[in-house]
This record gives sequence, structure tokens and C-alpha cells, in this order.
Amino acid sequence: MQTAITSLGPCSIPSPLTRCAQNFRRDNERVLCDDTLSSVQKTQEKKEELASFEVAGARSKIFFDPRTTKAGIVTCGGLCPGLNDVIRGLVMVLCYNYGIKNVYGFRYGYEGLVPSFGRVPEILTPEKVASIHKLGGTMLGSSRGPQDVGVMVDTLVEMGIDILFVIGGDGSLRGAGEISDEILKRGLKKAVVCIPKTIDNDIMYVDKCFGFETAVAEAGKVILCAHAEAQGALNGIGLVKLMGRDSGFIACLATLACAEVNYVLIPEVPFKLEGPGGLFEHLHARLNQRKHAVIVVAEGAGKNLVGEAGMDASGNKKLEDIGTYLRDRINGYFKKINVETTLKYIDPSYTIRSVPASTQDNVYCSLLAQHAVHAAMAGKTAMLIGRWHGRYVHMPIDLVTHGRRKVDPQGELWQSVVEITGQSAHFQ
Amino acid sequence: MQTAITSLGPCSIPSPLTRCAQNFRRDNERVLCDDTLSSVQKTQEKKEELASFEVAGARSKIFFDPRTTKAGIVTCGGLCPGLNDVIRGLVMVLCYNYGIKNVYGFRYGYEGLVPSFGRVPEILTPEKVASIHKLGGTMLGSSRGPQDVGVMVDTLVEMGIDILFVIGGDGSLRGAGEISDEILKRGLKKAVVCIPKTIDNDIMYVDKCFGFETAVAEAGKVILCAHAEAQGALNGIGLVKLMGRDSGFIACLATLACAEVNYVLIPEVPFKLEGPGGLFEHLHARLNQRKHAVIVVAEGAGKNLVGEAGMDASGNKKLEDIGTYLRDRINGYFKKINVETTLKYIDPSYTIRSVPASTQDNVYCSLLAQHAVHAAMAGKTAMLIGRWHGRYVHMPIDLVTHGRRKVDPQGELWQSVVEITGQSAHFQ
Amino acid sequence: MQTAITSLGPCSIPSPLTRCAQNFRRDNERVLCDDTLSSVQKTQEKKEELASFEVAGARSKIFFDPRTTKAGIVTCGGLCPGLNDVIRGLVMVLCYNYGIKNVYGFRYGYEGLVPSFGRVPEILTPEKVASIHKLGGTMLGSSRGPQDVGVMVDTLVEMGIDILFVIGGDGSLRGAGEISDEILKRGLKKAVVCIPKTIDNDIMYVDKCFGFETAVAEAGKVILCAHAEAQGALNGIGLVKLMGRDSGFIACLATLACAEVNYVLIPEVPFKLEGPGGLFEHLHARLNQRKHAVIVVAEGAGKNLVGEAGMDASGNKKLEDIGTYLRDRINGYFKKINVETTLKYIDPSYTIRSVPASTQDNVYCSLLAQHAVHAAMAGKTAMLIGRWHGRYVHMPIDLVTHGRRKVDPQGELWQSVVEITGQSAHFQ
Amino acid sequence: MQTAITSLGPCSIPSPLTRCAQNFRRDNERVLCDDTLSSVQKTQEKKEELASFEVAGARSKIFFDPRTTKAGIVTCGGLCPGLNDVIRGLVMVLCYNYGIKNVYGFRYGYEGLVPSFGRVPEILTPEKVASIHKLGGTMLGSSRGPQDVGVMVDTLVEMGIDILFVIGGDGSLRGAGEISDEILKRGLKKAVVCIPKTIDNDIMYVDKCFGFETAVAEAGKVILCAHAEAQGALNGIGLVKLMGRDSGFIACLATLACAEVNYVLIPEVPFKLEGPGGLFEHLHARLNQRKHAVIVVAEGAGKNLVGEAGMDASGNKKLEDIGTYLRDRINGYFKKINVETTLKYIDPSYTIRSVPASTQDNVYCSLLAQHAVHAAMAGKTAMLIGRWHGRYVHMPIDLVTHGRRKVDPQGELWQSVVEITGQSAHFQ
Repeated sequence: MQTAITSLGPCSIPSPLTRCAQNFRRDNERVLCDDTLSSVQKTQEKKEELASFEVAGARSKIFFDPRTTKAGIVTCGGLCPGLNDVIRGLVMVLCYNYGIKNVYGFRYGYEGLVPSFGRVPEILTPEKVASIHKLGGTMLGSSRGPQDVGVMVDTLVEMGIDILFVIGGDGSLRGAGEISDEILKRGLKKAVVCIPKTIDNDIMYVDKCFGFETAVAEAGKVILCAHAEAQGALNGIGLVKLMGRDSGFIACLATLACAEVNYVLIPEVPFKLEGPGGLFEHLHARLNQRKHAVIVVAEGAGKNLVGEAGMDASGNKKLEDIGTYLRDRINGYFKKINVETTLKYIDPSYTIRSVPASTQDNVYCSLLAQHAVHAAMAGKTAMLIGRWHGRYVHMPIDLVTHGRRKVDPQGELWQSVVEITGQSAHFQ
Repeated sequence: MQTAITSLGPCSIPSPLTRCAQNFRRDNERVLCDDTLSSVQKTQEKKEELASFEVAGARSKIFFDPRTTKAGIVTCGGLCPGLNDVIRGLVMVLCYNYGIKNVYGFRYGYEGLVPSFGRVPEILTPEKVASIHKLGGTMLGSSRGPQDVGVMVDTLVEMGIDILFVIGGDGSLRGAGEISDEILKRGLKKAVVCIPKTIDNDIMYVDKCFGFETAVAEAGKVILCAHAEAQGALNGIGLVKLMGRDSGFIACLATLACAEVNYVLIPEVPFKLEGPGGLFEHLHARLNQRKHAVIVVAEGAGKNLVGEAGMDASGNKKLEDIGTYLRDRINGYFKKINVETTLKYIDPSYTIRSVPASTQDNVYCSLLAQHAVHAAMAGKTAMLIGRWHGRYVHMPIDLVTHGRRKVDPQGELWQSVVEITGQSAHFQ
Repeated sequence: MQTAITSLGPCSIPSPLTRCAQNFRRDNERVLCDDTLSSVQKTQEKKEELASFEVAGARSKIFFDPRTTKAGIVTCGGLCPGLNDVIRGLVMVLCYNYGIKNVYGFRYGYEGLVPSFGRVPEILTPEKVASIHKLGGTMLGSSRGPQDVGVMVDTLVEMGIDILFVIGGDGSLRGAGEISDEILKRGLKKAVVCIPKTIDNDIMYVDKCFGFETAVAEAGKVILCAHAEAQGALNGIGLVKLMGRDSGFIACLATLACAEVNYVLIPEVPFKLEGPGGLFEHLHARLNQRKHAVIVVAEGAGKNLVGEAGMDASGNKKLEDIGTYLRDRINGYFKKINVETTLKYIDPSYTIRSVPASTQDNVYCSLLAQHAVHAAMAGKTAMLIGRWHGRYVHMPIDLVTHGRRKVDPQGELWQSVVEITGQSAHFQ
Repeated sequence: MQTAITSLGPCSIPSPLTRCAQNFRRDNERVLCDDTLSSVQKTQEKKEELASFEVAGARSKIFFDPRTTKAGIVTCGGLCPGLNDVIRGLVMVLCYNYGIKNVYGFRYGYEGLVPSFGRVPEILTPEKVASIHKLGGTMLGSSRGPQDVGVMVDTLVEMGIDILFVIGGDGSLRGAGEISDEILKRGLKKAVVCIPKTIDNDIMYVDKCFGFETAVAEAGKVILCAHAEAQGALNGIGLVKLMGRDSGFIACLATLACAEVNYVLIPEVPFKLEGPGGLFEHLHARLNQRKHAVIVVAEGAGKNLVGEAGMDASGNKKLEDIGTYLRDRINGYFKKINVETTLKYIDPSYTIRSVPASTQDNVYCSLLAQHAVHAAMAGKTAMLIGRWHGRYVHMPIDLVTHGRRKVDPQGELWQSVVEITGQSAHFQ
């Protein structure tokens, strides 16, 4: 596992931060990637090196001269709570703590770096961003999909941007990696630092993405509504589709939060609908006994049931809608067996992802932004700010874009969900 | 206008409430239906009687003997914030203030009064209802549509129920009127008192239905999400469908609350899509100028555009979905003229109507419940608790079921909306 | 009762609002002050004129020419939720609907109108106020107490301000009346229009002050905390002091909202602590039975128990603190009789009055602001925007500054409170 | 460092949980206490053993037979958000997942285990606890201070309680350790398992205590109020006292959350008021420049300034109130130098600690409860459920009661705070 961070060169400029020496972090402060005792012992026995991450934080000597440095910020992909918090945090730390005078916001994702689209970058100041965290969404706008890397680097060169902060998901991180490669290939001294964004919380080696906790809280409220609807009618069924293309984290955590869910369906755990032990049989039994039921389904669940349906603009595979599929199949099943049911289907994704960030995410976004600026000013590039086992660390971009973090069907999280819902061993 | 309240007979039992004499209300306390000066003067000139409502409140002498009285509660129709608050309030006042010992909750709407459905009524106690207002929905369940009136009255007789509280909308109020008629026809002494429920806030002579303010607050949050989504993409359009089959109150109030809406479409004001002055033209101009737009449409708006689609279980006419219709038409329009737009459509109805009541609605439901019990104990029947010009009053059921309250296109509310959105005179 | 509105002169300029004729209000649209049937009949019998209020709303002809009109806004007295909403609303309607180009915000209350304080007025634009309603407090700052009226009018003259909007309480309204008198005495054509502010909700003829519902909601949350604290210890007592110098509206409404209060003490209803039927005796009995109790006291309650303590800067009489007085007396009582109790005292006033406005108050403040601008542009002065029986009306300033609205101990509101708490007839 | 968990004996009873073999945790699954690379390398060089914690989770074989096991729950010390969530979680997992039939709730802390107090334990069922997490506080009540250990163990013996769950802070954990010691001394087979509770978040080796995030969110709201108050008056100062007897975690996190704080004072970082570089000098400069300021002080800050004032009932040292001390000193300072200021002091502790838990804490409490039950059923005792580096682990009680976790003045958290407030190097 490659965890060394690319550096633009030696740091010789004293940090303008007024810390005393021991309050700065050093590059040799590292934490283990795998902190289980057995893994460490095994590595020792094999005489191998222990994989570790560089700890984030301010460095006493920095690479860029704050008096002349220009920074740019771009937000890419779908909305996620906290985007404005991260933008705000970056601007505040750049301007107030490092004294940077020029910060630009690129409009509408990577399109904002491509002149032919005609999106004029916005000059960002502390005054302009002071209250944006009260609002959901991103003040810069966003877009999906890649743009020509050469053209984007040309824009950085023409505008004299030294540091590019990219806030985006999997695809956008790959894009940032390509921008960084092109910069290095051209022998330029420009840093590309990412703050990973995915409401699904499925980025490798990042134990919590910003906005995730806000999303879970909103999802929990929706489940309570589904529960009220289910109880409101005889044989009422509340069916909620939540985000989670490849991983069921939101579905699992929201279920743990509100404790009113009877069935959770996630991408990591296949399930069947019909026959002995299938969802229909258990749902029927539940209705007979309790007269109502709540089902939560992650959008990527049941891949064995629905087909794929092309690609979206970011190049992610699109799935047929499992939510409406399940709604129709459940309604069909009970109609066939002549049981009157009332199913209420709720698909709240826009109202989950576009709310302002919760307090916890306010804090988290502030800290991510601080660490991103510290890293960039120290000339680190092709990296992202991660949080691993509760610690802020530097991670090379290509480390995290090779896969997705998933709910472990053997792990305690899934077991906790199964035991809280009581769905254990039922239809799997 | 008929505003006399039917009474089961003279009140001779002293109220168990420990008020002094002047703190009880008298039946001759009345407030004007129309309090405009010109209307009163006109009536005076014509020597006609001024129409007025009986003021609600506790009476010093009551009709029913609390030691033996049995009460029943039923909730009908769709969910609305505050249902549990009203149930809770009724039980608390009946048990704690009047000392009633037997309160039954009928399950799943009027079906609960029809033995053949097999829904066993629930015994309601202060302990059982103490925390139900923290939850959305109705603890009793609900159903739509009428049931056999004779059978329902038989049930009341068999169970010895003296007072039936009906919490429901237009159709359910009519049902309650029929139950009351049947009771009177049989010469029985049973009161039927209603608390009107409609999230659309469109009951005649009721200036605010319970749950409405909660719904407006929730709708306002959704509009902010739509705004974040609209801003999040170039030429982003946020389209929100809100409740309002015949009246646009939620759409109007939610628009005033969040001040981010550009177009509000309500049933009371026809509009056109195409051609000069139509919605499309204005929307296009708005996108050119500001790059994003937010549209709120009440479900009953644009009846001239969409067709009807049968009846629902309550016997209300069903409309084709104006929300998806608008979505498709707007997308089609911009596709045809080759303008790239990103429309996000949000239909949040279940998550608006099934949340717990807000503080204001907690208070309002408490007061409605208190007044309903006072009225019922005084032997008033075939009536509902209204609030007119800020006052709690008694209203005969048939007064309010002959029409619906609507947003006046000439009134200040609609003008306020038009002036806040800036859509004034644009496409109407 | 004097309800005629002072006018600066005839209106001859067509309104820039694009309404059709019937959508404007006329000055002869009036609503009754007293809409009870008996009162109207009595007036008729005496052949007296019916007192009535002028209905608020846009006029088709206006007094001020929008192309040249300058407006100023000042906020006075203590904080109240919604101040920023009203400022925002005024600026939006002035600029967007009437096309006014110059709007000034005076800083720190009436001090901002007195040049010797050196507070430079702020130029207010729609951009600057767009998000201020997300924040509590007032962006303009405030101060208490009167300033020299002549000097303030001089400032208006020098700055060329045509319309002054005053957002303030009792004392500030009197101040606005004096400014208006001075303007008229000098023969100037300047309008002074007030939006009444008092978190106590005790302004005469105003059935709900802005911010009041937000305050009630916040107070309700605090009472739930007091309840949790009371239940958390054996013989736990939660004591909450709420606003209400002369009237107990917040205490009453918050009690109805959360239904966990056992004793409500308000200025309008005297009470005693000791002896048979006193608070202590009842509290002791309650603890014996239920092991915990919650008491809510309005700051102006128990005037017979505590003394006065000078004046505050606004010239309001200051009272000794009834909250800490009660805390100490209750603790003393139980100590004397050797009953171990745990009293938690909560005085949340700052955290109630300085929160952002709730959705309902967002709407209400928007509408108050719209109506204030309509009235001012029509040349009305020495008036305030009231809401009476749910209607927006124009009221002369001096009508409302002669007294305070109070909770009627014989009315249904207080009886509802007494019956919900169960404190009926106990210690009064 | 001692991290071995005491066990009541070998586990031979198959778990009733329907997991397959690999979904159970094994006792040899351990994670490092210190996961920094340098520390691991140093330990390796010294050939010492790596300190590690046992991973929490369900075991395939358990010690107690669910058919006969009786459990008790006790909550001790001050309120904290989530107490009811933990109680609810324990009861749900015990009853639904393990099939335990008898769960008792001891009332009012350790007093409930001492018969002479006469507090009858409450029988806890899933129905009774279903909605308690909607309420703040603890349904069982609480008390401070220790009780006779022998008597408490006698109670457990007499009632046949096999497992005691203790939810409490530092002092209560020590009490639980003594109960466990006494049990082992008597040769009994009873498990004592703790869920650590401290709103200060200062328990050793526990990276987040339940309720802490809720408290931070509430504290953040209060700071926004203080900011509104500060801005509302010329030279306005908002002073907020937050919890934190020995550690400033709430003060730091709430500051990061709302980004409106200018000075944070915590126990870990001494400060001076007067003289060059003192708080007064900087505050004065800030007021001159910005006209308002917000100060957050943790209750244990400034120990060098205020004196101690005895012990509380739990045996914790009581400090003089730094909040009112600061308020008076700041007011005195500005009075002396004739600068008019308006200081608003807010001490919100009860309204922070007694609110219902946030969504994140709902989840966290559920998981803590699950893991506590798994551990207890496996016969582990004298331990608590910790979370270390994001992992749920078993910790011996005496490991965590020897000190308190503190904010590291050299660490990134404090530096982040200093850099966000801009107070860096000012008065320290």
C-alpha cells in the first residue's frame, strides 16, 4: 500500500501561524493503517514494514509564500451537506490565518476551469462566505463529469493559481489526480489538495465523509414519517429509499438512529423476495402480527433483482430504481393474495442531501478545511484529507480511488442493524 | 346563514370544573361572522339580523353526568400533524378535568365503528397518551371513506358511548353530520362533536386548521432544499409540489416563509405555459438572468392543463399529477429550444403531513380539544370547534361542508405572494 | 376610541405595483374593534358610532414618489426574534416592489439618529439583507431609552429621509409618536410608521407581536429541560423564569405547548406562598404524590412579594428578581421542614429572545413589513401596523401606548392553563 | 497498562443470537492502545508487549443462561443527553435479542440499591421504554455520591440480579468497581458492566462520551444567541459559561461549530486578565475595532483566578463560579476606564444537559447498549464499554478512573480553536 505524499519541494518559508515550535506537526508523525494487534504482529513476524499514514496539521515551514499565493476552490458532483462549510473554512483559514489575498471560486464544477463554458470565477472573501454555512448546497454551483485536463491546467497557469482545492467524490478525485499528474508532468509547482465528498460515506480509508451525519439525521426523520404513515393505516407499509449506490451506510445508521425499521436492504447483502424465507413471506407474517411495517432500501440494494440502466454524467453506472420496483412488487404480491395493504413510498434524496450541515458537520468541515490548507501551504499535492480511526491524515489520491468502503456483512455494524430490526436470518 | 347549535337538551348538572361563576362562558356570548364595518352597516340598514357564532368555552351547567359518561374518539382521512395532540388533549380534559372514566379510541377511522371489520376499540387513559404528541400520525390509525351510518350508531348504542369526537376532513365531517342526524332521528341523547382536520387549511369559517402551521414550516424547509438544488447546477430549476387540492394556502404561506420562490402556482389562479406571458417564457428569461429558479405548485393548480383521474376512497375527485406534468413539460420545452437545464422535482407530501406537530400546533390542538370537550359535555351536537378571527367558536357541521375556503386572488395574501416572488402580472 | 390615521396629504402618484384596480385596498375598508354581538347591539341601541380600524394593504395612489424617496429603518429596545426579518422585509419591498433607491439603517437604536454619538448609518440593499433572517438579533444593533426629538428630526431633514420605520416596544413607539409630532409641527412631509415589538406580546390591540411564537417555542423547550431535571432527582423541582413584565402570555402559551407544568405564576393573578392554600403547601403535596414538580414564573409575577428596584434605561420600572426570590424561598421552606428537595432554576431569557425567527414568524414579519411599506408610501404617519382578530390594520400610535394587553383571569386562556396544570383554585 | 478484562468464568452456553460463526467476535481480537508508528516501533525495539484493548461485540458462547438471568440498570450523577437511549437500548437487546425476562430499573442512582431509602425498583419492559428516548433526562432518576457497597451487593443477591449495568461518571465508575470487587470477594457470579457518562467528554481512553455531540450542538446554539446579543448593543459582550470542570472539550468543539467566538478559556490553558497581553487588553482592542465580542469560558477555566469552594455530593471538588467572576471583572474593568459596554452573561448548563439526544447520539447509545449487553452476557465484569479510535472496546474500570482526558494545548484541536478565534498568542 502506497501512502507516501507527493511534495512540490522543500519547505523553507516560516509559517505565519503564531504557534510555538512543538505545536507544529512533523512529517514523520504517522499512524498505522491497520491497528489490530494481530495484523501488527503478523507484519513484525514477516519483517515487513508497517503501512501508515502521515498525520495532518500545520507545518512550521511552508512551501508557498503567503504574500503572493493564489488559491482556487471547486466543488464537483452531487450536493452534500457541508459543501458551503468547507468553502467557508478554506477561505477563512487561507485569508485570516495565512494572509492569502487572492482566493477564487470556480463555478459549476470542473466546467468552471474550462474557459469555453464562460463561467467567470468568483472572488471569495471572508465577508462573502461568512454566512453561507447556514444554507444547503454549494454557493459555487457544481456539475458532473470530467473536463479536458490540459485545458484546466492552462486555466490555472493563466490565472496564476498556485493551489487548487477540489471538493468532490470518487470521479472528481480521479480528475484531481489527473490535473495533478499534468501539473507535475509540466514541471509546475502547483498543489492539488482534495476534500473527499460522498454522501454514501463509501470512500476507502475515510471513516466518515462530511455531510454523512447530517444525512443520517435527515434520513432518520424521514423514517419516522414512514413509520407514522405505516401505523396510520391498517396493514400500512412505509417504504423509504435512501442513498447508497454501493454501500448501505446511511440505511444502516438511520435504522440504528430511529429504531422503527423492520427490514433494511443494502447493496452488500443480497436478498430474495419470493419463496420460503423471502421478504414477502416475512412481511406478510409481520403484518399479520403487528398490522404495519417499515422497510428501508438503499438505492444500490437488490442488484440481482433490477437491471442496470446506462451511465450518469459522472460516468457512474445507473441502476434501475429499486425503490419503485419494490413498491410495485410488494403491492403486486399482496394484491395477488387478496390482502389489503396501504404502501406509502418515500424517496427523499434531494431533501436529505441539500439541507444545511448539522453542528457536528459544521465542526468536521471546519477541521477538514484547516487541514487541507495546512497541507497545501506545505506544498503537498495529489492528496486528500482523510480521517482514519478518528485522526486527520494525508492520503495519496490514488490510494482511495481503487475501491469503495462497504458495510461488512460479518462486522458488528451490520449485525447491530440485523439485531435491532429483528430481521436476522429471515430472508437472507 | 345558519349558525345555531343543536343541543341535546337543557343542562342541569353543575360542571366539575372549579371555576367561579364569571369564568364560565354563556351561550349568548357571540361574535360576528363578518366584522367589516361596511357589512355591519349594510345589515343595519336592511334591518336584518347580524350573523354570529356562539363562543366556545366551558359552561357552568352541563348535560352529561361525568360519573357515567362514556366517550369515543375516531380519526379519519389522511394524516395531518397534530392528530395525536388532539387525541391526547381530549383524553386529558375528559379524564382529568371532567373525571370521565371511560374513553375509547376507535381504530382505523369509521371502520372502527363497524363491528364486521373486527377492529377492537382501544381503551384510552392519560398514561397511554402522555407522550404520543412526540410522534407524528395517529395512534388510532385512520381510513378513508364512509361507512354505514346505521351500523355505526348501533355500535355507539351497544357500547354505551355518549359522546363521539370525530377528527376528520370534509368528507368525515359530513359523515359525522349523518351520524348525528341518525342519533337525533332515533331520539338518542348522544353528542357528536368534530375537530376539523385538513392540511390544506380550506375549511369554511375556520381561519386555521390544526397542523397547518407545522406543514407550512416543513414545506418551507423543502423549498430551501429545492433552492439549494437549483443553485447547485447551471440553469438549475427546483420544482416543489405541495398539498392544496382546491386551495393554495400551504404554497402561499411557505413561499412567504422562505422568500426563495420565483413562481407559485395555485388552484385559485389559472395560468398558461406557452406563448407570450406564459410560464415558459418567463422562466426562460429568469434563467438567462439569474441561472436558477424555484417553482412551487399546489397539487390542485393547473386544472385547465391536466385531466381528472377518477375518485379516491374518500370520494374526492382525483386529479392527474400536475407536478410530474409540469416537470415533463418544462424539460420538454427547454430541450426543444436547446437550453441545457437541470430540473430537480420534489414531492414531499408524506414527509410534511406525518411529522410531529410544532409548538404552535401543540398549543392549538390542546385548546381545540379543551373546547371540544366543553361543548360535548354541555350537550351540544352536530357541531365542530372552529376558530374565526382568532376566536374559538361553535359551528354547525352543515355550515362548513357546503364549500371550501380559498385564497382570494384579489386579497392581500395572494398579492403579498405575487409581490414577494416578483411573478406579478407575468403569466396570468 | 380614536382610530383615525394621520395622513401627510392626498395621494396622487400611481402605485408602481402592478395590481389591477380591485386588488388595491381603500381607506374606507374598516373592521370593527369589538366584534362581539352584544357590543355591536349595545352601540346600535345607543345610536353611537362603531369603533373600527382601517384595513392595511397597498393603495392604488401613493403619496411619495418612489424615484426620489429615501427611507430609514431603526430598531430599538431589547432583542426579539424576527427583527432581522422585518428589516429584510422592509428593504425588499421598498427596493423591489416600489423601486426605492435609498434605504438607510440607523445603528444602535435612536442613538443612530443623534450625530453626536457618531454612529454612521448603513446603506441597506437587498443583497446585504438577503440572508440576515437566518440570524437572531438585529443587524443594525439597538439601544434603550429616548433621545432628543429635535436632534433626531434634524437628522432626518439633513439626510433627506422621507420615511422612518421604527421597530420597537412601548417606549420606542412613544418616541416615534414624538418624532412624528415634531415633524408635523415643523410642517414637514415625512412619514413615521412603526412595527410594534415586544416579546411579552402585551401591546394593546395587537393580537400577536412578531417573535412571540418563536419565543413560546423556545420557552417550551426549556420547560421540557426543567421537567427532565425535576424527574432526574428525588423531589426534583424545575423552576423556570420566563419573560412577562406585566403580562403572562409567554408563560401561559409555553405551558399549553408542553403540558408538563404544574404551577404557572403570572403578573395578572396574585398568589401567596405560605399558609393554607399557598404555593408551598400545594407543592409539598405534589412532591409527596409525584416526587417532582415544574413551576413556571413570569418575571412580573408576585409583585406583591418582591419590591421594585429602580428604572431601566428605557424608563421601565425594574422589579426585584422573582425567579431567584422564589428559588430561595422554596429551598428555605423545604429545608425548614426537613424535606430533601433538588431545585434546578433556569432563567433562559437571552437564549429565548435572540434566536432566529421560526417559520411562522418569518411569514408574519414579511407581511408586517409589506404592510408597513404600503402604509408609509401612501403617506400615512404616526401609526403602526397592528393585527387585530387576524387582520392587518393601521393603528394610531397613541391608541396603543396608553396601556398593556393582559391575560384575562376570567378568560378562556387562563382557564385553559389552570385546567391543564391542575393548579385550579389551589393557591389563588 | 493493564487492559485484561475480568471474566466470571468460561462461556459454555450457545448465544441465542442467530449469527453464523464468523459473525461473532473472539476475545483475541484486539486493537492497539497507541497506534502511532513511532510508538509501535519503540515498543518493538524494546521488545516489549504492545498494549491493546479487547474488541467488543457478541460472543458465540455466553456465560449467563438467558432463560434465568436477571438484569438491573442504574443511572448515577448529573443528567446527560442519551441516558434514556442507553436504558432503552439495554432493555431492547436484553429482552428481544437475548430473551431475558426480568430487567429492573433501580431508582435515583445508587440510592435505589439501598433498601433503607425505600425506592422500589421499576420493572422495565420494551413497551415501557419504547418512546423514552424522545425525552431528556433519565426515566429512572439519579442521585450523586456513593452508597454502602455491602448493602448494595446484598440487594443484588436478594433480588437475584445477575448483571448490573451502571451508567455514570468517574465517581460512579469507581463505585461500580467497588461493587464488582465485593462481588468477586464473596465469590459470586455477577457481572458489573458500565457505560461511561460524562458530558465533559473527559474519560480516559474514551474518544467520545455519549451525549457529548448533543451537548456541543446545544452549546453552539447558545453561542449564536450570545453573538446576537453582543451585536445587538454597542460594545456588546456575550459571555457564555459551558461545562468542563477539568477539560475544555465542549468549549472547543462548540467554538469550532459556530465560528463566532473570539476568546475561548479552558482549564488546560492558563490565562491572565490584566496587564499587557491579558484578556482585558485584547478585549478592549477588539471592541474598538469590531464593537462586539463573544467569550466562551469552561467552568473549570481560570483555576488560578478563582478559589475552590468545598466538595459536591459526588465528592468532586467545587470551584467558585468563573462565569460570574469573569462577568464582574470585565464589567469592572470597562467601568474603571470609562468605556460603556453591555455584557450579557449566559449560563445554559441545565438546558444543554437535559435535552433529548441528537440522532448521532441515538445511534451511539444504541451501539453502546448492544455492546454492553454482549459483554455482560459473556460474563465479563469490572469493565466498561469504551470507544477508542472509533472502535468499540472493553476496558477495565480501573484503567480509566486514574485520570481525565484533556485537551492537549500542543495538539491540533486546541491549535484549530486558537486559529479560528484569532486569539492566538494573545493573552496566554
